[in-house]
Amino acid sequence: MNASTLCEPKVIMGVDPGLSATGYGVLSVSSRRPQILGGGVIATSESDALPQRLAHMYGELKSTLDKYRPQLIAVEGLFSQYRHPATAILMGHARGVILLTAGERGLAVKEYPPAVIKQAVTGNGRASKEQVQRMVATLLSLETEGLSDHVSDALACALTYLIREDRFP
Amino acid sequence: MNASTLCEPKVIMGVDPGLSATGYGVLSVSSRRPQILGGGVIATSESDALPQRLAHMYGELKSTLDKYRPQLIAVEGLFSQYRHPATAILMGHARGVILLTAGERGLAVKEYPPAVIKQAVTGNGRASKEQVQRMVATLLSLETEGLSDHVSDALACALTYLIREDRFP
Repeated sequence: MNASTLCEPKVIMGVDPGLSATGYGVLSVSSRRPQILGGGVIATSESDALPQRLAHMYGELKSTLDKYRPQLIAVEGLFSQYRHPATAILMGHARGVILLTAGERGLAVKEYPPAVIKQAVTGNGRASKEQVQRMVATLLSLETEGLSDHVSDALACALTYLIREDRFP
Repeated sequence: MNASTLCEPKVIMGVDPGLSATGYGVLSVSSRRPQILGGGVIATSESDALPQRLAHMYGELKSTLDKYRPQLIAVEGLFSQYRHPATAILMGHARGVILLTAGERGLAVKEYPPAVIKQAVTGNGRASKEQVQRMVATLLSLETEGLSDHVSDALACALTYLIREDRFP
């Protein structure tokens, strides 16, 4: 085992940040096709106050990291244009909690703009949500049914890391 | 001591959220004029990655809360119009960490839009930063020199709570 293989994360987690629902998908990476270790959604209740929602999210996120112990987090990056700034700022709150959790554990973090994720996964930077979802399912040999949008987006983010680092066989 | 005085926070902290610099100011509240217990700025280095900056901020914020033990946090609320959405979303990351920290401890959180803060402190919802700073200094019998913008904005937020709840003598 040389220095380069030592440094390459073996377990990576893609995250699709959102205040109401944060999707995550965990991949185990080897020289063969990546395997899904798990995936799900961390949801918060709109009837709770914002501080309680963020605290809930932080707790769930920490136990998810404890469970899977990823070495790298891949997350959708910020983009410059938002149709709904107030919604985007609320998403920023959720994203802050995710990055904080990664920062506390010294995990590597990769950020990719939406168009880069679409390009990497489908070959088309303007692909639809459905096209991304179908390609995620194909690349990971999954059924598209039962793959929620949030988990699919999270897995797309993780796959983007593998494809761009030339680690997708 | 009746139920109402039991419920009224005796130590309140105003916070001016920012990724590069988060200002805070802590007031001790009694039937007399509020007294400043402390104030300062939690700064993060632009040369650090975002997850590390947020983790640093979170650590500093926790030790500040441990030091002063406020029962209530007053923080500038979200507004609907932002000139620089990308900057606003980054501020959202910092704000997420602040609200999370309050949520974890079950602290009361009050949010006030900028115009409400200016109105409460100066009587003019469109007051300048300097006018707010002068009024904060007057209301708390401080020298304006040495009062940083961030601490002044944080104290203005804390004062807004007291003024609006009719607890400023």
